[in-house]
Amino acid sequence: MGAPPVDEEATGFEVGIVLPKLPRAAAAEDGEHCLALLVRELEDVGLLVDRVRGVPAEFIKLSAPMGTLGRAAAEMQMKKLTYIGMELQFEWDQVAAFVTQPDGSLFSWRERFTCFRYLIYGIVNKMDSDISLKFDDKEFHWKQNESLLRRLEDEGVVKLVFPLHDEVKRKQLLRNWALNWHDFTWQPIDEVYSYFGTKIATYFAFLGMYTRWLFFPAVSGLATQLIDFGSLQWLVLPAFFIFVISWAVFFLQFWKRKNSALLARWGINYSIAEYKASANELDPLRHPQFVECVEEKKFDDAPAEKRRLQRNEWSGVLLRIRNNAIIVLGIICLQLPFELAYAHLYEKTETEAVRYVLTAAYLVAIQYYTRIGGKVSVILIKYENNQGEQSSADSLIYKVFGLYFMQSYIGLFYHASLYRDILRLRKVLIQRLVVSQVLENLIENSFPYLKYSYKKYKAVHKKRQEKESPSGKSVRLTTRVEKEYLKPSYTASIGEELEDGLFDDFLELALQFGMIMMFACAFPLIFCFAALNNVTEIRADALKLLVMLKRPVPRAAATIGAWLNIFQFLIVMAICTNCLLLVCLYDEEGKWRIEPGLAAILIMEHALLLIKFGFSHFVPEEPAWVRANRVRYVAQAQTVCSKQLLRSISKLDTKWE
Amino acid sequence: MGAPPVDEEATGFEVGIVLPKLPRAAAAEDGEHCLALLVRELEDVGLLVDRVRGVPAEFIKLSAPMGTLGRAAAEMQMKKLTYIGMELQFEWDQVAAFVTQPDGSLFSWRERFTCFRYLIYGIVNKMDSDISLKFDDKEFHWKQNESLLRRLEDEGVVKLVFPLHDEVKRKQLLRNWALNWHDFTWQPIDEVYSYFGTKIATYFAFLGMYTRWLFFPAVSGLATQLIDFGSLQWLVLPAFFIFVISWAVFFLQFWKRKNSALLARWGINYSIAEYKASANELDPLRHPQFVECVEEKKFDDAPAEKRRLQRNEWSGVLLRIRNNAIIVLGIICLQLPFELAYAHLYEKTETEAVRYVLTAAYLVAIQYYTRIGGKVSVILIKYENNQGEQSSADSLIYKVFGLYFMQSYIGLFYHASLYRDILRLRKVLIQRLVVSQVLENLIENSFPYLKYSYKKYKAVHKKRQEKESPSGKSVRLTTRVEKEYLKPSYTASIGEELEDGLFDDFLELALQFGMIMMFACAFPLIFCFAALNNVTEIRADALKLLVMLKRPVPRAAATIGAWLNIFQFLIVMAICTNCLLLVCLYDEEGKWRIEPGLAAILIMEHALLLIKFGFSHFVPEEPAWVRANRVRYVAQAQTVCSKQLLRSISKLDTKWE
Repeated sequence: MGAPPVDEEATGFEVGIVLPKLPRAAAAEDGEHCLALLVRELEDVGLLVDRVRGVPAEFIKLSAPMGTLGRAAAEMQMKKLTYIGMELQFEWDQVAAFVTQPDGSLFSWRERFTCFRYLIYGIVNKMDSDISLKFDDKEFHWKQNESLLRRLEDEGVVKLVFPLHDEVKRKQLLRNWALNWHDFTWQPIDEVYSYFGTKIATYFAFLGMYTRWLFFPAVSGLATQLIDFGSLQWLVLPAFFIFVISWAVFFLQFWKRKNSALLARWGINYSIAEYKASANELDPLRHPQFVECVEEKKFDDAPAEKRRLQRNEWSGVLLRIRNNAIIVLGIICLQLPFELAYAHLYEKTETEAVRYVLTAAYLVAIQYYTRIGGKVSVILIKYENNQGEQSSADSLIYKVFGLYFMQSYIGLFYHASLYRDILRLRKVLIQRLVVSQVLENLIENSFPYLKYSYKKYKAVHKKRQEKESPSGKSVRLTTRVEKEYLKPSYTASIGEELEDGLFDDFLELALQFGMIMMFACAFPLIFCFAALNNVTEIRADALKLLVMLKRPVPRAAATIGAWLNIFQFLIVMAICTNCLLLVCLYDEEGKWRIEPGLAAILIMEHALLLIKFGFSHFVPEEPAWVRANRVRYVAQAQTVCSKQLLRSISKLDTKWE
Repeated sequence: MGAPPVDEEATGFEVGIVLPKLPRAAAAEDGEHCLALLVRELEDVGLLVDRVRGVPAEFIKLSAPMGTLGRAAAEMQMKKLTYIGMELQFEWDQVAAFVTQPDGSLFSWRERFTCFRYLIYGIVNKMDSDISLKFDDKEFHWKQNESLLRRLEDEGVVKLVFPLHDEVKRKQLLRNWALNWHDFTWQPIDEVYSYFGTKIATYFAFLGMYTRWLFFPAVSGLATQLIDFGSLQWLVLPAFFIFVISWAVFFLQFWKRKNSALLARWGINYSIAEYKASANELDPLRHPQFVECVEEKKFDDAPAEKRRLQRNEWSGVLLRIRNNAIIVLGIICLQLPFELAYAHLYEKTETEAVRYVLTAAYLVAIQYYTRIGGKVSVILIKYENNQGEQSSADSLIYKVFGLYFMQSYIGLFYHASLYRDILRLRKVLIQRLVVSQVLENLIENSFPYLKYSYKKYKAVHKKRQEKESPSGKSVRLTTRVEKEYLKPSYTASIGEELEDGLFDDFLELALQFGMIMMFACAFPLIFCFAALNNVTEIRADALKLLVMLKRPVPRAAATIGAWLNIFQFLIVMAICTNCLLLVCLYDEEGKWRIEPGLAAILIMEHALLLIKFGFSHFVPEEPAWVRANRVRYVAQAQTVCSKQLLRSISKLDTKWE
């Protein structure tokens, strides 16, 4: 029972609660004033509370000593990785058994935030009767066993609970990371991890590695343009093509290795994480009938139960197939004609002015189109019985990426295949890559700032009006917490429920990867543009997260998930499209004819290969009842054995030390 | 601490030891006679011993009461699956915590056999001095702490230790399984499992499912031949092609599900099995430096260690690539020209007689060729630092299958592509499939019988000569154990070290699958032949195992391993070859021309797709040092916690009951 290796010192303020501002005069009369009660209750659970009166609202800043967090973690039976590589329920007195973070602290930022939420929302009315609360002019009842925060949120008293930036660490990251231009791709990933959590750190690790690896094809792309290979010139493009594909395959394989290494360093047990995912999938099994089954140890002998699980599984598969069919049909029947019409009209019109009008109309239209598509996808996913949030998020990513894929590349395909107009394709590629990415970066960074400025102006203006001081004494935002409150949060452009802002960042990356890979042979220089773009992208994204936005809510994710599959898919697409491009490039006189029969057979071959490699996504290798069988006792048994195990691990641990 | 649920009754005799036969007159003089000592020692460890004097040799039959087996399992610290889904060291007094077999017994056949080996080979000289033993005229010393069995084996006293058939169960299986023709594909898989172990049961489960699924393409293949589709006739073959490919993809995916289900039923924890495989891979890490590292808990801070592991890993990858390159070059440069020469000569010769001579010469030549190839593969694999026996066996399977693949199909490709001679191809296909498989089945079953008869004849003949009874009183083999001893064992045609007879059975199956899939469009009826063939194959293989051979040594294997990957690969090949066949079939007038440039690009595309999907086999997703990191404490911690955990599980278990 060694002493906890963590220092007991209080951490900085990490969570803020936003409340409406009351005139100073307002005071509690008969019913108790709810803010005073809230503060008292928060202090009672062991949190350090700081009240700040800001210009737009009033704030409560919270911080927790390690003891409070540990108690919360133990109470909520948080599973935590131990030194034997098994996740066990946290116990405060067996703290030596648990793996610490790379920076030496016991809890990761995500775990700390989970504890905060548990503590804040866990404040319930333990009295025998309802308590009447008063706020401003309203009066309401805090019922027995009801969460105080939920009540206050429902009544509109608590506007928001959000994570606060840690000014010291933020400034340090700003200096070491966002504004550190010494090395183009180096990033302090471990610090990013301990400040933002796994998911964002994984994104930046991926972005950094991708950018670093991009230098190879960028250099060889440049070489194909600058060096004259003489009589071997005709070999250059196929060689470059093979190089680029091999590069991409290697890159993704090595990324997986790097991802494993990162997770090992951060003390996240990957295989256990997988197991946990499968345990989550058991949620539909939390059915009285099932539990009974487990308790009676008759699972094997319950063919009815097995049949029910199988029925569930298959109905889920069918639903998923149907939804995907809807999305694919929607894309092919609605989006494809529209995109082709635009590309065709753009090609036909002669005047520049008409082209601009056309492009503007097109841009507005696709804005609406993708928004509708995203909404439809979110609705469809709600009807899927996806197992766990991660699975839903992945499903959404695939569907929305399908939309964007069509939208981004179909025009390019049109130029490449129908007109065989390589020069025009190059022009469009540069335009898309350079202009759109530069624009996107600008919007990405300036839009939040404008939003923030507007909110700030509004708040200050309102304040001024209230004070009715037409001139003189200026009103300023003085505290950090109110500034942070006014900053926009890190949200995805499609629905907030399943994804945060990383969705847009990854989408941008995937679309870029697709563009440079699929049209590599048409324009080898494109890799240089992409490399340059990504070097700035790293710093711009870092700056956005550190300066422009609220600190994002930390989320659990071990890998880049669905995006990796999308990158893999893009490589396969790139193999096919580059072959087409090579045919166009080498068949300058249009003499290579292909019989319709042969073409049909080739298309059939490619479709079958796609089926072969895509099918396994739909039917899981392990039937649901086997999985249920496999994990049936684990949860309950671990609960029972947990304490004993922990004690032995702690002993083991001190022995080894 | 509930009473063990297994009955304490002694099991039948399960292991036999073969000793040379001594004249009855021979007796021990001054040095102790070693056979008497052996029997006494075997009885001392708790085994039931039965001595049998047979015609060819003398036998010791062994059986073990449950208590003896349990003690052995506990002593050898056997890992066994518990009800919480975790493998823990076996403890006799916590027996309720461990999962029992489907037939209610505590140990599986493989576990029992492992215990037997442990008990038999664990007899050591515990005296302070060497013991002098005598056998026939020889005298030798049993050194201190030396295994008695090893000594006797070295001196040639113990000829063989082999598992015995269980006559009751064998007859039951013979009746229910090998001679049960009621349902064509039904098999009592659970009984097969408890008699032969996982690996053989998995083979028969696969064979049964494959045969059952074969009826679909067999029926539709028949339909394509019998039904006239009128004006849609040209669509029939492509439709059949698409159906067959989808069928194969579905079949393999559903096989994986079935495999999971089987493992769940047999109480084999698949994911744990995977984990165990990775623990096995750590064997090279049992390096003093590594252990030290673990003990000092400084793994992360030891970049030297990490670098060493990475160096090991990469040298292994390079070695594997080199060996595969050698095999591939050997196949392409040596076998391909040879096969093509044979196919060409066969096509050119006119006289039937010359053809027969040619075929005979060819058959003899390939016998040698594959034998040499197999030996080279085994040698190459020894130099690879493959991790664990399973990995070596897989590596061997891939290499040898490469040889057979070339040998079996290149002649067919030759007919299909160069001569575009579909009729001839069909003839060769029928010939290969029917003749070769029938022949193989005959050889497979008659060869062991002939071998057995010859051995029996020799033994009896020798006996007769010894007795010098030229006529009259016939000598007969009377006991089961001596008959079994004379039966051949279940060995692979290539090397005995890594694989047993299942290698040949799976090879046959894979070659058949390749043949029917890759040439599906040329001859849809082929599926009928395959289905018929497999229905007999099931019973023939069962008969072979039950009647013709010694009981095989049980081996651990959770899946069909490398063969599944080979089946997957054959599907991809089938997509490509059937497209080629369709081109040949529809392009009857030879008008479809393909430009060399276009052909080159298509070939490049297919090569790149192959690289894309094949590459990940070479570079593991998880670096060796991460894996080492992940499992570093598990083994030691499990040893420490094992007892405590077991007690809690037993308690849990009785509570649930």
